[in-house]
Amino acid sequence: MKIAIIGTGSVGRAIASKLVELDNDVMMGTRNVTEKLASTAKDYMGNPPFSDWIKSNLKVKLGTFAEAAAFGELVINATNGANSVTALILSGAKNLAGKILIDIANPLDFSNGIPPSLITTLSNTNSLGEEIQKTFPDVMVVKTLNTMWNGLMVNPDLIGKGDHINFISGNSTQAKSKVQKLLNQFGWKNENIMDLGDITAARAAESVLPIWLRVMGITKGGAFNFKIVR
Amino acid sequence: MKIAIIGTGSVGRAIASKLVELDNDVMMGTRNVTEKLASTAKDYMGNPPFSDWIKSNLKVKLGTFAEAAAFGELVINATNGANSVTALILSGAKNLAGKILIDIANPLDFSNGIPPSLITTLSNTNSLGEEIQKTFPDVMVVKTLNTMWNGLMVNPDLIGKGDHINFISGNSTQAKSKVQKLLNQFGWKNENIMDLGDITAARAAESVLPIWLRVMGITKGGAFNFKIVR
Repeated sequence: MKIAIIGTGSVGRAIASKLVELDNDVMMGTRNVTEKLASTAKDYMGNPPFSDWIKSNLKVKLGTFAEAAAFGELVINATNGANSVTALILSGAKNLAGKILIDIANPLDFSNGIPPSLITTLSNTNSLGEEIQKTFPDVMVVKTLNTMWNGLMVNPDLIGKGDHINFISGNSTQAKSKVQKLLNQFGWKNENIMDLGDITAARAAESVLPIWLRVMGITKGGAFNFKIVR
Repeated sequence: MKIAIIGTGSVGRAIASKLVELDNDVMMGTRNVTEKLASTAKDYMGNPPFSDWIKSNLKVKLGTFAEAAAFGELVINATNGANSVTALILSGAKNLAGKILIDIANPLDFSNGIPPSLITTLSNTNSLGEEIQKTFPDVMVVKTLNTMWNGLMVNPDLIGKGDHINFISGNSTQAKSKVQKLLNQFGWKNENIMDLGDITAARAAESVLPIWLRVMGITKGGAFNFKIVR
């Protein structure tokens, strides 16, 4: 399957590697391809230079946001949440129309220090997932995987035999069903995927970040996740 | 121990019953004692009338907010989060000064329908726990138990052999330590109590509510809790 990943940070890289391993044809989208490949510095999130990473991921293509979006039959938003809507606008509404868009991003606001808060206009009574859906009404936005460290997204068995929770939400039942099949390929069992409802439930999924960030600060690492005990 | 519970709803009742069972001397505080005892209607949250409940909890005293606060060596805020600061002001700063105040409330805003959002001014970059601490600087506010159904607060063993998480936060390490001992009496094991840090961590604990409410909507009941898998 041809899959576009918008964003080249740690989340995009983790997903890209896994998708290639699963025999998909992957193009990552970035603002400026030449700059991205030329840079030898860590990115602003502290990730190693993309130019290093791509050397061990040679099957991954790199294009502009728009090239990637046009390429993908399925599109994944793995950008920084503060920039997601802008990056998706640059990807082009017509390149996204009619497609499933998996939104993994979180609307974090680092302007008040660490741990970050949520971006006020994209939280509580709104969410990034909803904002993307409102901006691109022809796209089937599915929010999932945003509540955990990227290492677990594509390898849930890394902890607790994979028995922990991944939330999914979106307006299209059919789109969620397709995404769930991809999540199964990532290693997620159906009983560990909880459908929270329509895309307004992204408010709840994104609200996991404040507690996730605090717990990460205490456990000193991202290799944990929440499980629902009943 | 003499313990005051501010608020007479389902959380206050669950805590009061348990505290009496543990041989504490409990006074619940309400705005108007005569009205509270006279009312035979369900309260605004749908709880059975307090006048019914008190008949099977005869050891629990009822006083005004201020009487309860003056009575308690320890004070527990179990009011509706939207009214908590007002109720505590009515309880009297001098009655609270120097005491530990366990804050179990959540700043829910029902004005936009169900599930409720969080009160904007008391979320994200603020929290109810912090607001109470700022309003009563002489009080040692400890936030805990707010992330679950009240049945689990005082009986964690009801599900998963008690192996699920309860967060605690507050500025005073000594106060948190004392509260932790009370939580132990409620049935909480130390390994299931996670200290998130100072009272600003109440932002994170209160941010659990949006996802908790969505999950409750799906599981159709409150007898669940989150566990941290590592």
